[in-house]
Parts: sequence; structure tokens; C-alpha cells
Amino acid sequence: MKGVVYHGEHHVEVDDVEEPTIQSPTDAILDITTTCICGSDLHMYEGRTDAEPGIVFGHENMGVIEEVGDGVDGLEVGDRVVLPFNVACGHCQNCEEGKTGFCTNVNPSGGVPAGGAYGYVGMGPYQGGQAEKLRIPYADFNALTLPGEPEDEYEESFALLADIFPTGWHGTELADLQPGESVAIFGAGPVGQMAAYSAKIKGASKIYIVDRVGSRLDLAAEHSDAVPINFEEGDPVKQIENDFGGEVDKGVDAVGYQALDPDTDVGSDAYDPARENPAVVLNQLIDVVKPKGQLGIVGLYVPSDPGAPNEMAAQGRLGIDFGKLFEKGQQLGTGQCDVKKYNRYLRDLIAEDVADPSFVVTHETGLDEAPDLYERFDNRDEDVLKVLLKP
Amino acid sequence: MKGVVYHGEHHVEVDDVEEPTIQSPTDAILDITTTCICGSDLHMYEGRTDAEPGIVFGHENMGVIEEVGDGVDGLEVGDRVVLPFNVACGHCQNCEEGKTGFCTNVNPSGGVPAGGAYGYVGMGPYQGGQAEKLRIPYADFNALTLPGEPEDEYEESFALLADIFPTGWHGTELADLQPGESVAIFGAGPVGQMAAYSAKIKGASKIYIVDRVGSRLDLAAEHSDAVPINFEEGDPVKQIENDFGGEVDKGVDAVGYQALDPDTDVGSDAYDPARENPAVVLNQLIDVVKPKGQLGIVGLYVPSDPGAPNEMAAQGRLGIDFGKLFEKGQQLGTGQCDVKKYNRYLRDLIAEDVADPSFVVTHETGLDEAPDLYERFDNRDEDVLKVLLKP
Amino acid sequence: MKGVVYHGEHHVEVDDVEEPTIQSPTDAILDITTTCICGSDLHMYEGRTDAEPGIVFGHENMGVIEEVGDGVDGLEVGDRVVLPFNVACGHCQNCEEGKTGFCTNVNPSGGVPAGGAYGYVGMGPYQGGQAEKLRIPYADFNALTLPGEPEDEYEESFALLADIFPTGWHGTELADLQPGESVAIFGAGPVGQMAAYSAKIKGASKIYIVDRVGSRLDLAAEHSDAVPINFEEGDPVKQIENDFGGEVDKGVDAVGYQALDPDTDVGSDAYDPARENPAVVLNQLIDVVKPKGQLGIVGLYVPSDPGAPNEMAAQGRLGIDFGKLFEKGQQLGTGQCDVKKYNRYLRDLIAEDVADPSFVVTHETGLDEAPDLYERFDNRDEDVLKVLLKP
Amino acid sequence: MKGVVYHGEHHVEVDDVEEPTIQSPTDAILDITTTCICGSDLHMYEGRTDAEPGIVFGHENMGVIEEVGDGVDGLEVGDRVVLPFNVACGHCQNCEEGKTGFCTNVNPSGGVPAGGAYGYVGMGPYQGGQAEKLRIPYADFNALTLPGEPEDEYEESFALLADIFPTGWHGTELADLQPGESVAIFGAGPVGQMAAYSAKIKGASKIYIVDRVGSRLDLAAEHSDAVPINFEEGDPVKQIENDFGGEVDKGVDAVGYQALDPDTDVGSDAYDPARENPAVVLNQLIDVVKPKGQLGIVGLYVPSDPGAPNEMAAQGRLGIDFGKLFEKGQQLGTGQCDVKKYNRYLRDLIAEDVADPSFVVTHETGLDEAPDLYERFDNRDEDVLKVLLKP
Repeated sequence: MKGVVYHGEHHVEVDDVEEPTIQSPTDAILDITTTCICGSDLHMYEGRTDAEPGIVFGHENMGVIEEVGDGVDGLEVGDRVVLPFNVACGHCQNCEEGKTGFCTNVNPSGGVPAGGAYGYVGMGPYQGGQAEKLRIPYADFNALTLPGEPEDEYEESFALLADIFPTGWHGTELADLQPGESVAIFGAGPVGQMAAYSAKIKGASKIYIVDRVGSRLDLAAEHSDAVPINFEEGDPVKQIENDFGGEVDKGVDAVGYQALDPDTDVGSDAYDPARENPAVVLNQLIDVVKPKGQLGIVGLYVPSDPGAPNEMAAQGRLGIDFGKLFEKGQQLGTGQCDVKKYNRYLRDLIAEDVADPSFVVTHETGLDEAPDLYERFDNRDEDVLKVLLKP
Repeated sequence: MKGVVYHGEHHVEVDDVEEPTIQSPTDAILDITTTCICGSDLHMYEGRTDAEPGIVFGHENMGVIEEVGDGVDGLEVGDRVVLPFNVACGHCQNCEEGKTGFCTNVNPSGGVPAGGAYGYVGMGPYQGGQAEKLRIPYADFNALTLPGEPEDEYEESFALLADIFPTGWHGTELADLQPGESVAIFGAGPVGQMAAYSAKIKGASKIYIVDRVGSRLDLAAEHSDAVPINFEEGDPVKQIENDFGGEVDKGVDAVGYQALDPDTDVGSDAYDPARENPAVVLNQLIDVVKPKGQLGIVGLYVPSDPGAPNEMAAQGRLGIDFGKLFEKGQQLGTGQCDVKKYNRYLRDLIAEDVADPSFVVTHETGLDEAPDLYERFDNRDEDVLKVLLKP
Repeated sequence: MKGVVYHGEHHVEVDDVEEPTIQSPTDAILDITTTCICGSDLHMYEGRTDAEPGIVFGHENMGVIEEVGDGVDGLEVGDRVVLPFNVACGHCQNCEEGKTGFCTNVNPSGGVPAGGAYGYVGMGPYQGGQAEKLRIPYADFNALTLPGEPEDEYEESFALLADIFPTGWHGTELADLQPGESVAIFGAGPVGQMAAYSAKIKGASKIYIVDRVGSRLDLAAEHSDAVPINFEEGDPVKQIENDFGGEVDKGVDAVGYQALDPDTDVGSDAYDPARENPAVVLNQLIDVVKPKGQLGIVGLYVPSDPGAPNEMAAQGRLGIDFGKLFEKGQQLGTGQCDVKKYNRYLRDLIAEDVADPSFVVTHETGLDEAPDLYERFDNRDEDVLKVLLKP
Repeated sequence: MKGVVYHGEHHVEVDDVEEPTIQSPTDAILDITTTCICGSDLHMYEGRTDAEPGIVFGHENMGVIEEVGDGVDGLEVGDRVVLPFNVACGHCQNCEEGKTGFCTNVNPSGGVPAGGAYGYVGMGPYQGGQAEKLRIPYADFNALTLPGEPEDEYEESFALLADIFPTGWHGTELADLQPGESVAIFGAGPVGQMAAYSAKIKGASKIYIVDRVGSRLDLAAEHSDAVPINFEEGDPVKQIENDFGGEVDKGVDAVGYQALDPDTDVGSDAYDPARENPAVVLNQLIDVVKPKGQLGIVGLYVPSDPGAPNEMAAQGRLGIDFGKLFEKGQQLGTGQCDVKKYNRYLRDLIAEDVADPSFVVTHETGLDEAPDLYERFDNRDEDVLKVLLKP
């Protein structure tokens, strides 16, 4: 079968790869109908996080069950399902407590605490789904059944249940965003869009979204009633405080360690890695959020970054305004999303026509165009927000 | 009347000061029976945080109501009460939501978010209570009535309700410590002792306490069933993980920015400010706590520290292992304690003989000895753990 | 000044009454701009709950501050405010913990646990606000300031913050309604409308509303996306389960003890007190809500009802399907709303144009028409949903 | 092998029964070392709940893994484990959300919502464990591994993790009991003892326990610092309020529908089913708990009771003081315990020597004596509190 294979930095190809098979009675095999490209794929593509040549990418997967093992009793051949990007066993303490992003069984190589995932070096021996088929370990636990028929009008929205809709939602959960509260969301990429959209669904009274790309700010304004703040036009903290009349209740970081520092002057507002300042968004959030407020950090931070701007950051050690954070009595939550905690509820919001997150999808195409789209995505082509592949 | 007055760095004296009077119908006047010296007083005494000559110190106060204003209806002359160290108005949004450490009304000079307190420059115009009498603003809200008689067998324990018992408890609350969980507490000073004791009361299954002073470690072992970890004897993270067989569920920082780095080699294990490394405890906690675990930070961190070991730290910006924190999906909570949130329940635990936190009290004396005890406390005299003054 | 005075069962008149004055330094005087008639007024009007001739009705009050006592420091003359229907002191344990509907200070006559209220016999010595002016006790705590100008386009919505918007919201809070969940709301009167609207704001995936009045069901369908269920057309539990395909996650009772039994056959679907069955809605909720689901009960139940259909019910003892409730492992929460817990957040949703609950208002008129509207309301005139009086 | 088999009302025998075998790849086989007799067994034994002749009783089971299926990867032969009495699949929505007592997969016959259990008619096709061996379905999910060796000094305490320690704990969780609060626990049988002991572990400030058997009251006083209240000596509500000086914060019902009414006068204080009044404890709890307090109901209530004192109760409909409950704004939670939610934490409390619940065990014996002990238990022999069988 065909699969999107990593060949080295900035190089993926669509190759013939081996078909997956049932390896344990609790496995199932999925026929992929939709699989997405994610910003985390880009981290590997750019060599900013580990990747080994030969790996098939793809952790946002949905499709139809083709085969089930003898120990699977909640799924049948033909079931339409979407998979959380996390692989989880369902019976370790973390899984049982809903912390499925931190399963302690699925990543036996150890070392990394952050559970398992499809198509990720260091997160277990699980092939990715940017291919025609995929093995689902612990299938009863990892597959969420979906109503309707493959490729119906909900296909795009349901595909986003694998990662970015729950991850954006997770940002608002880590911030403990409550109805009637105000929130500032940094980053208007796919996850930031979903965080803003989540804030709207949850009844936030005021939503700010911060980015440098006008079209993304407009998208969040249109679909999530967010007030757009362009950080190239001035200190985003001051812009928000001027508009709102003070600090906001909660904040979400949907940017992560590749944050650009608005104060850097490079003669243009172009994207330029030299402008990176990995703690800048964290410190802006500490600044713009009220005393006793809470920050939800879902943008990726890493304990080791070969491309970091300085040696301290290369070891994941960042200069955080902790004195101010403490003085303000703030709380913060971090980490990758435990998708299963939210995906049933978000599925129901989609199926009942309350939510339609598909507005972030800019491209739907076959596997063959994946290499080209990886390149455009890597070049921060502003037209490429979210790509769905149809094998 | 007599009061303990700050005259400049490392210099307090017992002077004659003006008696307090009712200034608003919601005020009351307290006859002090017990008032404590706190580590935060020491920060001012040492010039590490702001203090103005002439101020009367003392934010841990209890006594008997001597006079009430016309608008006070929940207190009567003769009532025995203890005051939270925070001064709070009772009707701003923060007060109404239990965030009484961050009252937005009591500190009209502005600038500092952290509410009001007695005897603190920058935290409102409230005289301290290391004196014979004290004005209580918003007395109905700020005074907690106590059973029994002044100077009965509960006097010491009740006095600790003003600050350190609730503050230690707050550390375990910010860490969301649940019954059956394991916890590592850094710092065996008064607040660390109270955090360990709180963990015991809450039903922790395993409590570690980290310090360098043997007598304090012994005290926590005796009264809180804590396993003592002396950081002068080796990396505390490794000591805990070796004993416990892995990472613990939760962590509490009861040290703050004046943390000593165990890796510094000064030829002895003496206390030496040159060994300070303000982020060392935070990073140890990130290390020793499990993925998805939570950290409660009640040790003080400040946005500006003239005595900091480097320029970044002088501005309250610390090198935090944020990449690791994120990878582990941890949460953290910070800030000074909202005493009123806990003080009724802790009072009842004392009054019903379930809790007796008075084991931390090492000295009870008159006001006159305050200058000497400040000096010994400042010199890290290991015999001085908690001092109660009886005006 | 003029006020709506209770003269006996089914009899109110607009009389001259004494103007209120400052009685304590913490009081303020309010110039009423809007005051509402509530279903609870009707309970007194009908003699189903206690009322003494001479009392001025009115617990849903808003207006402009006319005068403040010496101990008031958060309000100024001219401030626009709305008052929670509960009167609360702000410094008893319940008030401090946000349980302001159960203040233990404001109702010194004792006996009744349910705090204080304006214009209610047995809930403290507080005159009602269906008049030109009103005394506000503990004014700093009880008045919520509002943006804008009196009689602006938000006047109607802000007036609903005194009771029914928070009370409807409270129903969804007691049911712990979470985004993505399904909910059945019994009763489409003002509180049921607000509960459905709250469920929509909170991101419910499916909302059912049950009533017998078509126009009210239509209103909830239009403004809250609720599925209308007319209980005169068949068992509401079966109707919901058929439409939804099973039991719902959560339930709200916005009916109370005057519930009509759908099984009673009176030859017509007219309102008829003989059809009352005080436990019928509770048992329907137990039936229609999932195992482990939760019920929020905000419809009024009383410990003593002279008009009850049988002796057991007259003492507030109802035949509840407790065996089924237990077998399903359900939880339930009850009681009058602690308005202050929600009113700031709901105010902000209104002020930011996220929420506009004014769709329930059917009548706005002067005090003079109050007697007529009480009568029509009492007769269950379907055109009278919510009446606002403008003194 | 041998097993305790139900032959009809008040009749069990130790018979030869078929050995269990692996039926699915996710099964395991347990060698029983300890299995307990529970009050719920008695409900079947007495014919008050369904039971079919031929069934092997026993839902409180621990032992050593003898065999595992191919799809089991978290257990090995020789592992020491204890099983929750609930059988749960681990991948339905309820299981994933920790509601393992209400698994929707394990009870395919349907009708009953309350999940699965071993040795229970109507709760799935699972043989009981009062036998030499037992099949564990979904073994990875249902078996909790234990430290130590079979029959070591923790054997008794660990055996109680199957049901009564978690169930008692659940009562305090449903009541949301917090440190420093007061609580009244009705019933001093095994579950009531465990509820009182849980309250002590959690740091309750005051614990009342209500029963009619002096030795049980004494046991709770000795091990859980509970104040004993004998309801044969006067109204338990008044006794508690007199001692405490008012209503308590929280309440736990560990009695259930076979409650005896203290007001019945039968000439003696003997146990007599004619004294049953199924709602009496619920109404006492409503009475004795504060406004805004919470009730945890873990004593069994059933939707159908052939032995009920009246027709309404026979259908599980009870006369509850709902008017008073509402006026007090109380909350309540009910239902069988989701054992997995607590058993890891309670295991750790035992293993770390913080908790030792074995004080409730009165008998340890072989299977052969089971029939005799069932009879004595049924006769309310006061010497028989908790029986452990060693096959």
C-alpha cells in the first residue's frame, strides 16, 4: 500500500509500505478515509524533534474498521471510527484516570513520559496513518465510533476529532475557562483556531486571538467571534488591555517554543526563525492574565531543542517571569491533550449540528500531493492552514 | 503603646507608637494576645523586599475585640478572634470568590496585585500587630471568632491560623493533594512543617520532606510521619526516587526564591547566600513529580530582588525547565494564601483535638525580646523555628 | 411613595407606603427603575406560601443608588445596580463560601433556613421593591454595578439578573451540565426558559423542554434551540427517549410542587389544580436521565403546603422513586439560587452581547397595572410570561 | 472444585462446581486466597433481591493469577490481585469516565442499569468467587495488583478493597466530605464502619455514627474516633444536635431500605423486620444535615422489594421529606460504588501502613463453614460483622 514516508530533513515521499496486520487479539485494522497533516509532523520534518528515515507519518486518522482481533468486542467490521492521536492501553493508572496522553504501557522503550502516538519516533512502535491502512492497538479503547457514512458532510469535522479540536479544547480546559469569562488565545494556527472556537462554544464573554497573519485573525473573528490582535502592530498585551480595559481572566498558549518575539526588528514582518524567543508567549500570558487567573499551555515545549536560539533553551530551560506569576497567584496547566477525555462530547456537538470546526480545513487531496503540501506548510505558506489527505 | 518598629536593614526596636482608633464604621480594635514573627518579616528585615523605617511589623495576629464600629454586626466586645494576615474588603469580586489574598479594594496605592496585609509596605496602609493593639478594617469579614478563653491551651495553635497553618495547607491545595497520594515537600521551615502536617491530615500515603537542618527534618518525621531527605547528603530527587521507587504524585515548594543549590560546593554545609539559586527547587519539583502531577508553590517568589544572584533573577525571571514540565503535562499553582478559605476548617480541627500544629513553636516571649529574636532568626539560628510574641 | 401592597389572598393594591431610610452605616437607598413580578410572588398571592397583609411585594429589583451609608465604600450615588433577590450579609460562613441564598445573619427570626429576601414574609424584615424606592442592607455586598445608562437597551436583560436568569442557570449548575451533554428541562415558564437558554450558552449538544403551553415551547425552540415536548400529547419521558434514542445526561426541574400530572384525565388540557401531583416531575426526571446522571431542582418545593392534594404532600413529604434513583446511581441538587455566584458572569455575557435573555419579557408597564397583571398571571394567562414594572 | 451454592431462600451449601476456564483472550483465571461474605449476599439469601438456585455467591475476591488469555498484557501468572466486586469492560463511556459500577457492556441481558458483578443474578453471567477459582473477564482492567505475598499481614485489609472499604469511602465521596467538616454516618455495619474510618482518614473534624448495636458503636469509636449514637436511646437527630450544638455538614447513609424506625415500639429493642421503615434514615439525614449540606447514600435502595412494609415501598417509591430537602438546598448522591475509582489509593494507604481497615473482620474460616455463617449473619448475630472465607 502507499504511505507518506520520512526520508530525512525536509524530505518526505509517497512510497510502497507493508500492509498492517493483527498482532494481538485486541488489535483492529483501519481502512483510512481521512488523515491529516499536523504542525507536530512539521517539527519532525524540520528536524526540530526526532524522526527516523523510514517512518510513516500521520497521527490524525479516521476511517472504517476492516478487521478485528478475537479480543475486540466493542467494534465490528464496517464501523466508522476516528482515532485519538494518542495510543493508550486502557488499563494503566493514567488511562483509567483519563490521562490517556500519558499511558505508561504503550511506550516500552521508556524515557519519554508522554505516552504513545502513531507515526512518532520515541512514542512507541506505531506506524502512522498517512497511508491506506493502519493497525489500531487496544482497538476497543482507541477507536471512537461515529454516526453517519464515510465521506458524508461531517467527514472533515470528525477528522478534526483526532487531534486539533480536542487539543484546542484542552487549552481552554487547562485554563479552566468558565462561561462568562474573558480569554486571550495566543496563536491563530489550527490549534489556536480550535481553542477560540472552543471558548465560544463554552460561553466565554470575550475572546482575544493573537497572531501575525491577517487571514488567520480574520478566520477566528468570523467563526469564533474573537477580537483579532496582530502582534506585528504593537505589544499584544497592551493592545488587549487597552481594548478590554484591563487584564483578562484566562489565557491559552497555542504557539509553543517556536514563538516569534514581537520586539525583534528584522526589517520586515516576515517569518524568520531568528526572531524566535521560546518564552515570549508565556511571559505575555503572565502579563495579560489577571491575578488568580489560569494559563492553559498546549503549544509544544520540548526538553531538548537542537535548533534553539541559545544554550539554555536548547535544554528546554526558559526564562519565565516566575516572580510575577507568583505575585499574581496564577496557575498553569500544560501538556499534550488526552483526546479521549473530550472526543465523545465534541463528536456529539458536531453530530447535533452545534459545532462545525471544519472551517479550518484549507486543503483536501490525495496522498500523492503530501510532499508538496509538507513543503508549503514548512514555508509558512499562509494559504495552508489545515490539510486533509484522502488515501 | 509598645510596638516592634523597623528602623532600617537588620534593625528593629520596641518603640512607643500611637494607639489605633476606629476610622470607619466597619472597623474594630483588637487587644493583641499573641502575634508571631514570620519568615516574610525577615525578607523586609534583610532588605530583600521593601520596608520603610517607622512601620510596625506583624501580620499574624490574634486577641480580643476591644471596640467595634457602628457598622459591625457580627462581633462583640470580648470576642476572641484570630486575623488572617491578608486584609480584605469582603465585597470585591476576588473576595466574594474566596480569593481574599487578592482583594482589589484594600490596596489603593495600586501597582501590587497581591491584596492587603498588616505591617507590610506596599500592601496597604495597615499597621502591623507586633504591638499591644491593632485596627481591624472590615472587621466582620476579617476576624475569625474562636472558642475558649484567651491564653488557654489552644492559644498557640489558634495563633498559627493567621498564616502558616493555612499557608502550608494552601501548598497542598495548590498541588491538589488527594488522600492516598504521595507528596514531596521542599523546605522544613514553619510553612514546610505545616504543609507536611496538612498532608498527613489529608491522608497522604507517603510524605517526603527536604531540608538541610536535621532538627527540622526530625520534627517533620515525628509529627507528620514524613520521610526526611537531607539535600546536603545528595541529590534530593534521586534520594526520593530511590526510596519511593519512582516519581511522586505531587509536590510542594515551601522554600521560595532564596533556595540553596545542593550542587554548590562551599567547603561546608553552612548557610551561605552565595549558594542561592532561585529556580533550583522548582526544577527539582518538576523532576521528582510524576507526569500529570501538580506542584503547589507557596514559597515566596518576587518580581524584583535586589539581592539576586544574577541580573535575570533580579527581575524575577527564572530559568525553569519548562520543556520537561510540558513533556510531563504537569500543572502548577502559586501565590500567597487566601487564609479565609481554610481558617474555619482548620480552627475546627484544632478545637476538636484532631490537629495540634503548635509543635512548630519554639519561642514564646514578650515584645521586648523581639529585636534579639529577629537577629537570631536572620542568622538562621537552627533553634529558632517559630516565635510567638505576647504583648 | 407608591408600592404594590398585599391585602390578602388574590388581592394586591397600589398604595402609599413609607419611604425607606438608611438604618445602618452599611445600607444604601435605591431608586427603582425596573422591578419584576415573579412566580414566587404568585405563591404568596395564592396563599400557597405565607404572606401578611401590608407587605410590599417585589424581590427582583434594579435601579440607581440614591444615598449610601457611612460604611459603604464600593458604591456611589448615581451607580446603576441590580440586586440579587437574596439579601445576604457577606460575612457569615455561607456568604463567604458563595452560598448567599442561605445567609445565616439576615433572617434573625430564625426557623427558616433559606436566607433572606426582599418582600417575603419569613425571609427577614426586608420590604419589597415593587415601589419607587428600596433600602439595600449590606449594600456593598448586595448591589451589583452595571455598565451603561438607566433604561438603555440592556435594561430588560439586566433586570433579569435579579432572579430568573441566575435561577435558570443554577438549575444547569445543580445538574452539573457540561458542554456536549444532553439535557431535559421540565417547565417552560420564565425559569425553564432561562435554564434552556443557559444550557445553550454552555454548549449543550441537545436540549429538550417539556411544557403544556405551545407558545412557551415555541419560544424555547426559537431562542434556545430546544426540542419542544408537549406533555399533553403523551408521556414526556417516552417522547424524549424516542426522539433522542435513549436517556439524556442531565435534567432540570423548573416546575416544582405545583406540577400537573400528565396522566390525569380532566376532559381537557386546561390548567386545573386538581391535576397537581407534586412528585410527578421528579419521578419523570429520574426516569429520563441516564444512570450516573444528575438532576438540578430549582422549581420550588415546600415543607408545608396548605393546598396540597394529600396529607403527606401537605407536610412536604413526596413519593419519590428512590429505589430507581439509587439503582441508577444518580445525584441531585436542590434549592433556591445563590444569585451572587453567577450574576457578574451573566452580566458580562449580556454587556458583551453574547446573551440577551430579554425574549421572555412579555409586559413592561407602570406600577398601577400591577394588580391586573397579578390577576392574569394567577389565571395562567398564556400571554403573561414575564412582567416588568417601571415605578 | 468446591463452591458456596445458593439452593433457595435461607439455604446455601458447599457443592462441587465446574472449574472456570478462559473464554476470551482478555480473560484470566484466579486462584482464590480470600473471599468475603457481604450484606448484599444476605439480600439474596433472604429473598429480598433476586437469586436463582445454582448460582455461586461471592463478589469480594482476591487471590493469585493462575492463567492469562492471549490478549492480557498487564498481568502475569503468580501476580497477587484483588478484584472490584463490579465487573467492567474498560472501554464503554461509563468505564472510561470512571463509572465502572455502571458499565454498559457487561450485562447484556439488559434491564438493570447497575453494571456487572460476580455472583449476582441480574448483573451478568459471572460466577461468584466463594469457591476455589474464578474467571476474571477483562482481566487487565478488573484486577488490581498487590504488593507482598499471599496470606501476609495485609491479606485481610487488601481483601476489603473488593467492596466495603471503597464502598464506605464512596459514601464520604458522594457526601463530598472535606477535611475539617463534621459528618453523621447512619449504620455501623461493615460499610458504616468503613465510612467512619474513611472520614477519619480524610480529616473530618467530628464524626457521629448511629446504630443500635453497642459493640459496633464501640468499634467505630475505637478505630474511627466516632461519637456513638444509639438510636434505641432516643431520636438520633436530637442526640447529634445536642452534642454538636447544631446540624452537621455532611451525612452518609450506610443502612439502606431495611432501616429500622426508632419510633416503632415493639416492647424490646430486638431486631424485627416489622420495624422497617425504608425512608426513615433518609429523612433523619435531611434533618440532621445543614442547609447546603450533602448526603452520600450507599446503603442499598431497590426499585422493587417483595418484602416491603407497604405497597408504595414495594415499588421502591419512598416518602421523602423533599420540601425540607429543597428548603435546605441540600444535594445528594447515590448508588453502588465504582470500586476502581478508589482502590489503588486505598491499597497504597494500606501498603504504606497509614490505613488498616481489618478491624472489622470478625471471622476467618474455610468454605465449609459458610452455610453456618450465612445463617448467623442472617439472624443478625451481633458477633458476626465481617466474614472472610479461605478456600
